[in-house]
Amino acid sequence: MSFPALNFCSNCGTKLTQRIPPGDSVQRAVCDACGTIHYRNPLMVVGTIPEWDDQILLCRRAIEPRRGFWTLPAGFMELGETTAQAALRETMEEAKARVELGEAFTLLSVPHVDQVHLFYRARLLDRDFAPGEETLELALFQESEIPWKEIAFRTISMTLRHFYADRKAGAMEFHAGEILPPK
Amino acid sequence: MSFPALNFCSNCGTKLTQRIPPGDSVQRAVCDACGTIHYRNPLMVVGTIPEWDDQILLCRRAIEPRRGFWTLPAGFMELGETTAQAALRETMEEAKARVELGEAFTLLSVPHVDQVHLFYRARLLDRDFAPGEETLELALFQESEIPWKEIAFRTISMTLRHFYADRKAGAMEFHAGEILPPK
Repeated sequence: MSFPALNFCSNCGTKLTQRIPPGDSVQRAVCDACGTIHYRNPLMVVGTIPEWDDQILLCRRAIEPRRGFWTLPAGFMELGETTAQAALRETMEEAKARVELGEAFTLLSVPHVDQVHLFYRARLLDRDFAPGEETLELALFQESEIPWKEIAFRTISMTLRHFYADRKAGAMEFHAGEILPPK
Repeated sequence: MSFPALNFCSNCGTKLTQRIPPGDSVQRAVCDACGTIHYRNPLMVVGTIPEWDDQILLCRRAIEPRRGFWTLPAGFMELGETTAQAALRETMEEAKARVELGEAFTLLSVPHVDQVHLFYRARLLDRDFAPGEETLELALFQESEIPWKEIAFRTISMTLRHFYADRKAGAMEFHAGEILPPK
């Protein structure tokens, strides 16, 4: 999801000006007619790591970007919800999966796309999952079966790597970090 | 910060329609002229808990909302930055304070205002802090001196309560949670 252009004021329809508002230090799209300042801020993408015994549920993406690649169920947080609610909703939408939510596990900034990705641990309550509209197929993977070269996004592979490293170390911990731009 | 009205398309200036786009389940502001869908999503507010020995630096707010009340240095995350960079920037802007960033400590959803607040632990590198433009005054507080009834936001008091409870327990841990709407 990229941001729409800020050419016109969404409040009154007037053409916008780019300038630094008083007391600010960043250039913003400002409406000289109604005074509205149009801020742009990073978006949160929230999802889960759904576990079934020692397997993890991955979704093969039916939509761009990265159609055909594997991901954890996740998506953009909506207005009016908590991060935990967003994680449950996205898991239901993408995998029609019922989970019991566990701890927050990774919080990964992706500054070059203006996103912050948050993944919760989760326990699948049953195996009655099914692809949602944005998913081609679903599968449970053992660690040795993870399709590392066909993972959709680097936040997903980083989350899975932390998961398996922590599990091996015998201590699951919260990880905050960042993904640098591709070279 | 409240969101500006979505009356006109920011891309082409046409009057917007409210409807559920194909494949979506939520009503969005859609432009029937250029096809742009105008999504609205929660915002991240990021800050620090600046420590100096056993004291914490609080800022008395010079701006609304909650002018005159005490807060931790924090603010809206900007495009192009990581959560860690946002935390450092806001600590510099509000308190002109140099800190060494520690671990992420609290991640608190505030769904009734469409925000997610993230606080990092931080160690003040010196006492050469000074109020920024949005701060009336700064002070270091011992636990017994915290002005609990004059704290600006509930995410701040919850963060401080977790901090002192963890310190007492001898183990600082990451806390994810939420703030319910006021009754």
